[in-house]
Amino acid sequence: MTSRLLTEGIKSRVRRPSLFSKLTTIEDVIDSGFFKDGMRMGWSGFTGVGYPKVTPIALAEHVEKNNLQGKLKFDLFVGASTAAEAEDRWAKNGMIARRYPYQLGKLLRKEINKNTIKFADKHLSEFPLDLISGYYTLEKKGNVMEKLDVAIVEATAITEKGHIIPGASVGATPEIVQSAANIIIEVNTELPNFEGLHDITSSSFAPYKFPNLIQRVDDRTFIPCDADKVIAVIETKLPDHTSDSEPQDDTSRHIANHILDLFEHEVSMARMPPQLLPLQSGVGNIANAIIGGLADGPFSDVEVWTEVIQDTFLDFWEHHKLSFASATSVAFSPAGFKRFYEMWGELKDRLVLRSQSVSNSPEIIRRLGVIAMNTPVEFDIYGHANSTHVNGTKMLNGLGGSNDFLRNAKLSIVHTPSTRPTKKDPIGISCIVPMCSHVDQTEHDLDILVTEQGLADVRGLAPIERARVIIDKCAHPKYKPILNDYLNLAETRCMKIGAAHEPHLLDKVFKMHLNALSEDNTMRIDSW
Amino acid sequence: MTSRLLTEGIKSRVRRPSLFSKLTTIEDVIDSGFFKDGMRMGWSGFTGVGYPKVTPIALAEHVEKNNLQGKLKFDLFVGASTAAEAEDRWAKNGMIARRYPYQLGKLLRKEINKNTIKFADKHLSEFPLDLISGYYTLEKKGNVMEKLDVAIVEATAITEKGHIIPGASVGATPEIVQSAANIIIEVNTELPNFEGLHDITSSSFAPYKFPNLIQRVDDRTFIPCDADKVIAVIETKLPDHTSDSEPQDDTSRHIANHILDLFEHEVSMARMPPQLLPLQSGVGNIANAIIGGLADGPFSDVEVWTEVIQDTFLDFWEHHKLSFASATSVAFSPAGFKRFYEMWGELKDRLVLRSQSVSNSPEIIRRLGVIAMNTPVEFDIYGHANSTHVNGTKMLNGLGGSNDFLRNAKLSIVHTPSTRPTKKDPIGISCIVPMCSHVDQTEHDLDILVTEQGLADVRGLAPIERARVIIDKCAHPKYKPILNDYLNLAETRCMKIGAAHEPHLLDKVFKMHLNALSEDNTMRIDSW
Repeated sequence: MTSRLLTEGIKSRVRRPSLFSKLTTIEDVIDSGFFKDGMRMGWSGFTGVGYPKVTPIALAEHVEKNNLQGKLKFDLFVGASTAAEAEDRWAKNGMIARRYPYQLGKLLRKEINKNTIKFADKHLSEFPLDLISGYYTLEKKGNVMEKLDVAIVEATAITEKGHIIPGASVGATPEIVQSAANIIIEVNTELPNFEGLHDITSSSFAPYKFPNLIQRVDDRTFIPCDADKVIAVIETKLPDHTSDSEPQDDTSRHIANHILDLFEHEVSMARMPPQLLPLQSGVGNIANAIIGGLADGPFSDVEVWTEVIQDTFLDFWEHHKLSFASATSVAFSPAGFKRFYEMWGELKDRLVLRSQSVSNSPEIIRRLGVIAMNTPVEFDIYGHANSTHVNGTKMLNGLGGSNDFLRNAKLSIVHTPSTRPTKKDPIGISCIVPMCSHVDQTEHDLDILVTEQGLADVRGLAPIERARVIIDKCAHPKYKPILNDYLNLAETRCMKIGAAHEPHLLDKVFKMHLNALSEDNTMRIDSW
Repeated sequence: MTSRLLTEGIKSRVRRPSLFSKLTTIEDVIDSGFFKDGMRMGWSGFTGVGYPKVTPIALAEHVEKNNLQGKLKFDLFVGASTAAEAEDRWAKNGMIARRYPYQLGKLLRKEINKNTIKFADKHLSEFPLDLISGYYTLEKKGNVMEKLDVAIVEATAITEKGHIIPGASVGATPEIVQSAANIIIEVNTELPNFEGLHDITSSSFAPYKFPNLIQRVDDRTFIPCDADKVIAVIETKLPDHTSDSEPQDDTSRHIANHILDLFEHEVSMARMPPQLLPLQSGVGNIANAIIGGLADGPFSDVEVWTEVIQDTFLDFWEHHKLSFASATSVAFSPAGFKRFYEMWGELKDRLVLRSQSVSNSPEIIRRLGVIAMNTPVEFDIYGHANSTHVNGTKMLNGLGGSNDFLRNAKLSIVHTPSTRPTKKDPIGISCIVPMCSHVDQTEHDLDILVTEQGLADVRGLAPIERARVIIDKCAHPKYKPILNDYLNLAETRCMKIGAAHEPHLLDKVFKMHLNALSEDNTMRIDSW
């Protein structure tokens, strides 16, 4: 360590002086030959925030400068997505052998869909458990210890004991640190110190697991870290690179209104208390419209138990409708982060970030009776949903936490526009199909399905009843006759062979999908 | 009440004398006009044991004698299956409008597949919660209260406080009693008093739910029951009508051996302790072979956390390999029940029966790190499984608890013979298919897939890697080339359009299924 690395920023953020001896630059770590082809690597980061800012970029530059494309390849494990531009650069440089369990990156996705990068998506609550259980390192003996060759994690401070205060996300960082042989900490001295915003528990193993006894929402802790495993402490000053918030449109506002009407109905039927039940909402413009609607809506003292906090939550707080939120990351737009830091003093007592094995825990989601809301690629007439694979084959981003929430929630809601455009037809894709081309959520999981057309409440209904109400309430008017024809034809044919509990025509079931893939480029078929 | 109803049996089993005034016969209850068309009704019972023995039969006779077929129809809610012969008679008499969430009955299934009886299957852990949350009675206000018009439940005793000691199953009986306006108790004085065999908690609602703090395996309780709601106490003497245990064959023994080898490997790799982790096993001959293998195997002090206890568990105990078992029912064969009663004194401290919302709870299954094992109808090359619908349309029995366990287990195993016969081909059905015709368990849930051919360990693998190992290890030799051809063709075609994360040919994906449904009557197709 040269003394020029011991800046005022580092002195104010790193409270364990023995770690000063590990101060270095990423260039020096790379030059030391530490990084080797085939390493298993974990990063901090979740929904594009809290990821390491300098190491990935420096490694990409190293590969590009020394023509090491395809010769320095890593298995990369992160709680969810990081900065797409860094991961895309890695994908382009052939630096990723495997990438689990969720991603956002155009080039990365391209390589995944060419099968040059191995990718598998997994329930986000289970991924950290699989990691520490050694399920990604089956040739190694034992639980936990040193499954990963290196963890590269962002901190906004380090405590006296050497424990890590993360930034805008927790995600799987605790388990990644827990299972790494070597740890590189990037201390971001430009971000505010996020101390006091997190409540973090490390994962334990059966048969030594304990009930998750979260007793107070305001417990505040950090990521335990074995200081002897820290091989480098590096100062960074780069912000999280996020994009602007997705604007609401008429479609998303219609969807939000249907859902708000449902909430009022459930309260009036005494199935929900006046403050509702804790909410989980996904990302994107529909989620924004729902939270925006709630910020202006009739419900007070609402609580949130979710994965990601986005811009519209700031209004929700500011209008004094949201009493407390728990998540695993805050992924604001640049303008949102500015507002968030300004509201910091007030919000600190109304927000906590937890690890994804807790934020997405089936145990707690079921106990709290969460209302879960997510956008799938498509859903089918019987109430299955596809959240991952377009036409059953092309990976979008991954399963994420959708199934942790939708399976275990008290009220499970999926919402999507009824159609999407293709190049040749502005309503060329119907998001309601006879059978999902890939099933992530099953008919046994979902209660409510919504489009801008209307809301289908399928609680307590048998499959054919479900199909009638889903087509009637959710399908676009142009697709209603097509889907009804399918259902009637399938019912008639299956009835003849006494197999009509969930009627289907296996020879025609994907005809709409195939037609959209063809020259026609639309799901609007003339006949079955 | 006439005094001839106050038998010695009743006096010894009903410890709340005020209930003597409710002693009656089912014929008198029927004659009183209590049962009305359109009633919502709950029964005790799970996996064909612990169901009411006289009321269903008496009601069927009443309908048959008075030509009321189709005129006295009920919505019927039971934890899982009851006696198939009673339910089949009801189905034949047109006495069932709806039947949730699981069943076993030839005629009942026939009507379900003709859509004359509405049926929906649901995760067994969630069904009781949906019931008390009013999801099957959406037109009624409020939680819990009086969702069902009547609960008909079997007891082997009634306590001083009027609480119910059930028989061989708990299932959803606590929630059915909790949500009924009227309660009919059938006191079975011929069965032993099962007192001390159950640990029962009633379900509560968000936002008033508490962690499930089971602290001792030997807590012993009963089903809380409001004595004022009891309208009839009826003595019965009929045993549970169960069938003989399914015999093990070479196929099931091969499958069991693959799984026992895996357990030894996992222990040697220190991913599992020497006593294994708590086991869940399904029903049928494969489950019998596995438990039979464990009874003679190298593991001691094994614990079981499961749904149903069957005959081979008696050996498991007798050989001092099984230390403790928790389930929601004991469904022995007639010979097994005899043995069970003989071993009663010894087993009472090594067995407890709980409600299905606890035995199947995601919270506890994940905490305990359960090893889950179940038999699906088919699984596909990417690791999805179909547990419910033959050819995607014909309901077998229902989802049951398969997904409660397989989703949340530490090690999720599905096992099936690699083929099943059709009328024309002894290996006409391959249980490994390109795409499941109905998806109940997703690729995100399963770790291990087994047939008599071998065991595929897909932990940590990406979809195409999974497909290669599943075809290689699990498919029947006659189907291997067919499935490999599909995979190669799908990969080539999807690669061309950059959509090969999980390659499929949507126009051909069910060709094997369709061929089996055709004159050919086999999945062995000549080409794709």
